[in-house]
This record gives sequence, structure tokens and C-alpha cells, in this order.
Amino acid sequence: MKKILSFILLSAIFVSCGNRCEFTNAQFETPGCLRGMPINATFLDEVSWDIPHQNWGVEEWDKDFRAMRDMGINTVVLIRAGLGRWIAAPFESILATEDVYYPPVDLVEMFLCLADKYDMAFYFGMYDSGKYWHIGDYMKEIDLNIKLIDEVWAKYGHHKSFQGWYLSQEVSRRTKNMTKIYAEVGRHAKAVSGNLPTMVSPYIHGVKTDQVMWGDKATTVSEHEYEWNEILSNLEGVVDILAFQDGQVDYHELYDYLVVNKKLADKYGMKCWTNFESFDRDMPIRFLPIKWEKLLLKMDMARRAGMDGAITFEFSHFMSPNSEYSQAGHLYDRYCEHFGIKNKWKNR
Amino acid sequence: MKKILSFILLSAIFVSCGNRCEFTNAQFETPGCLRGMPINATFLDEVSWDIPHQNWGVEEWDKDFRAMRDMGINTVVLIRAGLGRWIAAPFESILATEDVYYPPVDLVEMFLCLADKYDMAFYFGMYDSGKYWHIGDYMKEIDLNIKLIDEVWAKYGHHKSFQGWYLSQEVSRRTKNMTKIYAEVGRHAKAVSGNLPTMVSPYIHGVKTDQVMWGDKATTVSEHEYEWNEILSNLEGVVDILAFQDGQVDYHELYDYLVVNKKLADKYGMKCWTNFESFDRDMPIRFLPIKWEKLLLKMDMARRAGMDGAITFEFSHFMSPNSEYSQAGHLYDRYCEHFGIKNKWKNR
Amino acid sequence: MKKILSFILLSAIFVSCGNRCEFTNAQFETPGCLRGMPINATFLDEVSWDIPHQNWGVEEWDKDFRAMRDMGINTVVLIRAGLGRWIAAPFESILATEDVYYPPVDLVEMFLCLADKYDMAFYFGMYDSGKYWHIGDYMKEIDLNIKLIDEVWAKYGHHKSFQGWYLSQEVSRRTKNMTKIYAEVGRHAKAVSGNLPTMVSPYIHGVKTDQVMWGDKATTVSEHEYEWNEILSNLEGVVDILAFQDGQVDYHELYDYLVVNKKLADKYGMKCWTNFESFDRDMPIRFLPIKWEKLLLKMDMARRAGMDGAITFEFSHFMSPNSEYSQAGHLYDRYCEHFGIKNKWKNR
Repeated sequence: MKKILSFILLSAIFVSCGNRCEFTNAQFETPGCLRGMPINATFLDEVSWDIPHQNWGVEEWDKDFRAMRDMGINTVVLIRAGLGRWIAAPFESILATEDVYYPPVDLVEMFLCLADKYDMAFYFGMYDSGKYWHIGDYMKEIDLNIKLIDEVWAKYGHHKSFQGWYLSQEVSRRTKNMTKIYAEVGRHAKAVSGNLPTMVSPYIHGVKTDQVMWGDKATTVSEHEYEWNEILSNLEGVVDILAFQDGQVDYHELYDYLVVNKKLADKYGMKCWTNFESFDRDMPIRFLPIKWEKLLLKMDMARRAGMDGAITFEFSHFMSPNSEYSQAGHLYDRYCEHFGIKNKWKNR
Repeated sequence: MKKILSFILLSAIFVSCGNRCEFTNAQFETPGCLRGMPINATFLDEVSWDIPHQNWGVEEWDKDFRAMRDMGINTVVLIRAGLGRWIAAPFESILATEDVYYPPVDLVEMFLCLADKYDMAFYFGMYDSGKYWHIGDYMKEIDLNIKLIDEVWAKYGHHKSFQGWYLSQEVSRRTKNMTKIYAEVGRHAKAVSGNLPTMVSPYIHGVKTDQVMWGDKATTVSEHEYEWNEILSNLEGVVDILAFQDGQVDYHELYDYLVVNKKLADKYGMKCWTNFESFDRDMPIRFLPIKWEKLLLKMDMARRAGMDGAITFEFSHFMSPNSEYSQAGHLYDRYCEHFGIKNKWKNR
Repeated sequence: MKKILSFILLSAIFVSCGNRCEFTNAQFETPGCLRGMPINATFLDEVSWDIPHQNWGVEEWDKDFRAMRDMGINTVVLIRAGLGRWIAAPFESILATEDVYYPPVDLVEMFLCLADKYDMAFYFGMYDSGKYWHIGDYMKEIDLNIKLIDEVWAKYGHHKSFQGWYLSQEVSRRTKNMTKIYAEVGRHAKAVSGNLPTMVSPYIHGVKTDQVMWGDKATTVSEHEYEWNEILSNLEGVVDILAFQDGQVDYHELYDYLVVNKKLADKYGMKCWTNFESFDRDMPIRFLPIKWEKLLLKMDMARRAGMDGAITFEFSHFMSPNSEYSQAGHLYDRYCEHFGIKNKWKNR
């Protein structure tokens, strides 16, 4: 018994005292080190398109919401209520007409409970059929989502954390009638909910999009401005937060796009957020957490461009101390150091 | 000394009492949640084709066999004795004629010792030349395996866990003479071993096969039935367990295939197992553990189709609490919860 | 309090005594198991081309240098001072003329401090513009690096661990004027530093190069010998260590190449090292740690071919007990067992 106790104590001594590192990161920081803007929101990518699943239950999610809050995140955005046959909760309006799989968990209720607990705002992401709007049947996409909004607001609207809507379909250009979908769905969501804010997160038609990598031509900054000026002019009063994804252009091109995006958002009375991609698009493994240096570079540009807020795609895989990709935990460490946030997750 | 002790105790208190999660997964389970059939077997993918290696020694394997047993697995199947130049043990019959690399570990002996220890059945997977049968030289593939069976039975047959054979070559259609290989090799394996059971695990020529993704046409359910009726008619009495892989068709197509497979197996006096793929084929990272929701969907279909058993490809990378892909451990957690299995691996 | 103490003690008893594995790896080692040559050096791949980043700070790096040393590594080689727009430290000579991103950390100073601490030799890798030499403007590549060498030697040359230079541009054949870059840059580096040794690490134009996988023809062993005889004849006295990468040819082809490389190095008065790739090129995930059996096979060939030393690409992702790819830790375990090295990192 004594021997075991000694063993434990000696282990503790070894861990806390042995093999100390006498250096600190501050010693090696460069004099002109960039200065980022902080992240206030994250997507919740549970109905995923291309990111493998972590298989978390509520305990793991509870822990992760705590890690988010500790880092300064106060808003979580459900990436979508469903994609094709997969849905995030047993929505009766969708089960009634669509050929979807019955889900095992009510993720919407779970995320709302956790957001309530941690005093966060929850934004509900719409259902993306993955087909109707692709083949031009945009009315079907609108109808489904209007019924879904009614159902969801009735069932979950009582949660104090239910504070916004996310129009989840992702486009980079004037995709056939997408503006109409955003407008109709956004208008209805605001109408039923006492004007809760709505968010969109389009992408830039840049060199790192699949389309351009497969041969399409990237748009220039001014083409981007021209096209999005037109799109946004139709969304005034319907979209409150414009949060372009920041990963489809090259790093040295990003700042100019951020400036344009901010200008456009201001023009149409929207908040301009940036969507920091926290995964690395430049590696053969698609995708693992981004290098801190790259994230910092983008955070510095966003700060200089005067963005009104920042969401990341996404915390739980790519920035979390709880992520199954443990590189993410070290990204969290670097982030906390940069902003002088006390890191409660250092010893994990 | 006292200070350190306090530190340890306080840490323990913090870990066990602080930051509690007041929610349970049961609270968020949907009312109509699907109900799966359990898994009774796994492949051991040590001579791998496309899954990176975990570099485990016997200690790590011992631990993993224990985790398998704790989850209800009672059968382990060596995926193959060798593939091309790589072999699982220093088989003299293969070293004598084939240009293979001399292996560092006798994996067959190791797996048999562990299966003995944990009261499991071990199935020995054949050598896959990776060439002879591809170029039509099927007699060479048969000869090599017949000699290998003799050697292996003489050397390892005394283990109580040596309880079956796995015909490891994988096909989806009437590949040239594969039926003859199965028949000859299976017959010989049964003959030398007092009629121990034999297993095959073919795949369905579906939308997620490499062949179809590269332009070939997927077979329909009735084409599949027609072709496999002919193949299996030549394997009556030689193959005891038919375990089709379940991942090359889309989820909504799977049930119909399972029903056909069961019908065919019954017709030819075979047990019909399903081979649950526990990795995710739909992601750009090829491959990480599957989402629990997807596995459950397949397990529900297998239950409804009346399968006689279920093997998974495979436990140690994709479902194990010891896997280097830690998502796998959470899949294990979800699995245990679903079946009400006491999870001894929760705190890992 | 007492209850918690009991809990801790019981946990300790359980961990140290329960579920013991009565087997050892030695029991299952094959009688003719191959015998490798040890690794004495590693690259530091912080300005990476294709390996995702681990986001380590100095604490994590300190720990990793210790793990290297414990395994027998005495030399670390910075893979490159920069690649395109990304640089490893705020080099004034590069910032002055190149459109690069300002870095957050002085990695050169950090690695030198750690190499000093752990009594290792540090080799400085050159800046790779990623463009000038590709488009034939080799003088620009040379000029940049000559200025960089002067700056770096003045700023960091006082470190006792600064013991060599690495010519970082990677080629497999007579790429336009690369010999001139190696020669000019290498000569200058040696001149300013009192003749410190220089290293190159080319690759073989084999079946696993991107070029050949995209349709180019692999060179034969004799073509390789012919071409590199000519290249090396121009580098006599400028390059001290020739360390070909060992992963672009098939395993069964490697030995013949090693023999030729050794012969060529001897002819031109160079040390012949091998560069053990410790990642697996044969898997769909590009890249995770290599299987121990494969590494051992290459280490055995290198020993038999009489190599003078061995560097690996690279320890921290693919062989380290601290790697975020935990398979790497098990590779470390296997390596230590093979060489009878006391493994201080077994319990991690």
C-alpha cells in the first residue's frame, strides 16, 4: 500500500518537476508578430458533408461547449438541419414528405440545452435537400424550409438560447434562384420569430474551390464585387449577418476580398463577419487542423479589414482541446496564448 | 510532500466532481430510434491493403482482444495470411517459392494465443498473391494455398481457438475462375481440419466500388441475385458462411441486397452474415471511423433482414477504444449504450 | 477524503496489476527477423509542403527533442528556411525583397536553443523560393540564399549546435541548373562557416514519385547511376553528405539503389546516408506513420548496403511518442525494442 502511494507521489513529482522546459513561447515570438481578431462563434458540423464524425454523446458535447465558452465563443450555429437523407432531429415536416433516414438523436434539443446552460446564442441552420435547388426546383426547397421553420419554432422556440437562423445553402455566385430561396426563407424565419437575425455564409469563387480546381475560372475581386452587389441588393432586410468563408482564395488575396465584403455588407445594412476556416486546405489529407501561423495571418487581415465578428468552421474538429484530431488542441493552446486567455484545457 | 498530495487529491475531486454533465444521452434519444443487431466477429486487418498500420505489439493486441470480448465479439478472422510480398508469419511453403519479404512477427501464433486466452474462435485467412488470380493463373493461387493450409494446420491446428478458415480473395462478380479457387481451397481446408467452417466476404458491385466510381456500371439487385445464384451454386458444401460487405451500395439500397443475400444463402445451406463496414466511405479522408448513425442504420437493416451473424471490418481501427483513431472509441461507447453493455472502457 | 484516496489507490492497483498481458513481443519474433541500422538524425518539417502542422510551442518541441535524444538521434536538420511565401524566422534579407508573410515565431532560434540543450547538431536548411529555380531563374535562387547564409551565420552562428547546412531544394534528375545552385550555395555556406558540412537529400525518379504516377517513366538503376554520377561529379568538395530519400521506389528495388548511391558517394568523397521515410506511401491517406515491418525492411537493406548514417523524414510526425498521430508512438516503441533501447516514453 505504502509502495503504491510512493509510486503515485513520485509520479506526480516526476510529472510536475522533472524534465522541465525552461523556455517560454514569448521568448521566441517575433518582434513584429501579427495581431488577430478574436473568434466569437462556431458552426456545429453534425450533419456533415465532408468532415468525418467524432461520435460524441451529450457528455462530450457538454465538455466541448465549455471549452468554446472558455475561449470566448458565445454563439453556435447548426450547420444545417439536414442534408439529403440525413437529418438532425426527427422533424415531422420532413419525415412526412422526404425519403430521409430516421435519426437516433434529437440534436437540436441537445444543442439548445447546452447553449442554454453555457449562455450562448444558438442559430438554427435550414434543411438542404441537396437536390431540389440543384435542379432548379427552388420552390420545393423554399416550401420544405418554411414548414420546417414553423415546426421548429413551435417546438424549440421557447429555449432562451434560440436566437437566430442560418440560411445553410452555400453558393459562390448567382446560382439559379438561390437569392429567392434566401429571401423567402429568411423572411419567413424572421416573421415567425419576432425578427431574430439571419446569417448566410457563402464562399468566394477562388482558386481553392472544387470548381476552379476542376477547370473553372476563378472570379477576380471586381467580378466578385459586381456579382455580390447584385445578390445582396435582393437580400436587404432579410439577411442580417454576411459571413463569407475565407479559405477558397489564396492567403495573399484574402485581404482585398475582406475589404470588398465589408463594403458590401455596410451598403446593405448587414453585419460583416468573416468565417475563419480552421482546417488546412493545402494538404493532401483533406482535412486536418490549420497551422496556427495561417490562422493568425487570416485573423490579422480580418482585424485590419474591420470585420464585425468572426465565426469558425469549425471549433469541435479543428480548434478544440477535445477534438479527436489532437493538433486542434494545440491550436487552442496557441490561440489562448495569443489573446492572453487563461487556458483551462492545457492539461488534458 | 503534503502539498503534492493535496494537489493529487484536489485533481481527483475536480475530475470526479467538477464540471459535471447533468444530461444523459437517453434524454435526447428519438422516440422511434432504430434498433440494431449486434456484432459477433471482426476481421484482423494486419496485412492490410488500404488501412494504415497501428504498429501494435502483443500488449496492445492483448488489450484490444479484451475490448472486443467486452463488447460481445467471439470470433476473429485474419484478413489474409499474406498479400503479394507481405506475409503474416514465416510460412515455409510461401517463402520457398514466392518472392516475399521475411516478416518480423509470427502474427498467426500471436493471434491464436490471444484468441485462446479470450475464448474466441480464430479463422485463418488464405494467402492472396495479388497477381496469379488477376492474370488468370488460378491453379497457382490454389496450389500455394493448398500447401499453406497443410503447413498451417500442422503447425497451428492444435490451438483450441483455431476454428475456421477464411477464403480471402475478394470479388464482386463472376471473376474468372474465382469460384474454382474458393471451391478447391475451401474443400481442402475442410478436409484437413475435420470440416471446420469456411467463410467468404464478397462485395456488391455497387456505386461505391472503385470500379463503378471509375466508370463501370453498378449491377442492379436482380443482376446481383442472378450472378450470385450461379456462383453460390458451385460453392454448396464448401462455403459455410457468406458475409457480404455492406459498404459499396448506398444506404437506401442496402436492405434489398441483404434480403437477396439471405435468400441465396438459405438456398445453398450457408449461414448468411453481414459484414458491417465500420469506416466511412463518404468522406475525403479514406478512411476514418463511421458515424454511429450510419452504422446503426445498417445494423437495423441487417436485423430486419434476418441475418445469422455479423462481422465488422474492422474493430481495431474503427470501433475500438484502443484505436489510434480516437473517434473509434466513441463509436464503441455509442455501441455499448445502444445494447446496454456495461462499458469498461469509458475512462480511457 | 478517505474515499477519494481509496479511489486513487484502487485505480493505481487496477492499472498496475489488473489485466496483465502475460506475453512478450520476443515470444512472437520470427527466428530470422531482419536487423536494422539505427537512425542518427531527423528533419524538422516545420515549413511543410504536404504534412499538416501539429501546432506545437516550445514546450512541446522541448519534449520532442528529448524523445529524439532518448532514441539515439543526435542531429536535427531544418527542412528549409522557407518555402514560397512562408518563412521560418523573420529573415531580413528575404523580407526585404520577397513577398513573404511575416512569421509569428523565430523557429531557427528556438530549434538552436533546444539543440544546444540536448547536445545535438543543427543543420540549417536553405530557402526554397518554390518558383525561381522552377522557371530557370537559378541566379535569383542562389543570390537569395547567399544573402540568407550571411544573415543567418551572423545572427545564429554563435550557437554551439549550429554545425551544418542543408541544401533544401529537392530534385530527382538533372533539373535545369540545380547542380549550379547546390554548388554555389554550398560553397558559400562552407566558406562563411569554417567549412561546416553540407547535406543534400535528393529522391530517386521511381514508381512512387508524383511524376511517374502521372505518366512519366521511372528511371532504371543504371540510368540513375549514370545521371547522378554526372551530377555528383560537379559537387565534389561542396556536398559532404548525400542522403537519398528511400521511399519513391518499391521495397524490392531499394537495395540496388542503396548500393549504387554508396558507390557514387564513395567515389566523390561524400558520406552516404540514407533518408528513411517514416511515413507510408502506399495508403489512401497521404500520409500516416509507416508500418514497423516496412521500416525494418528498409533499415536492414541500409545496414547491408553499408550506409554511413541515417536521417528520417521525419521523427516528430511519424516516429515520435509525442506525435499527434499516435501510431507514431507505437513505431517508437517497436524501434526501441528492436535496438534494446530503454524506452522512457512507454507510459504516455
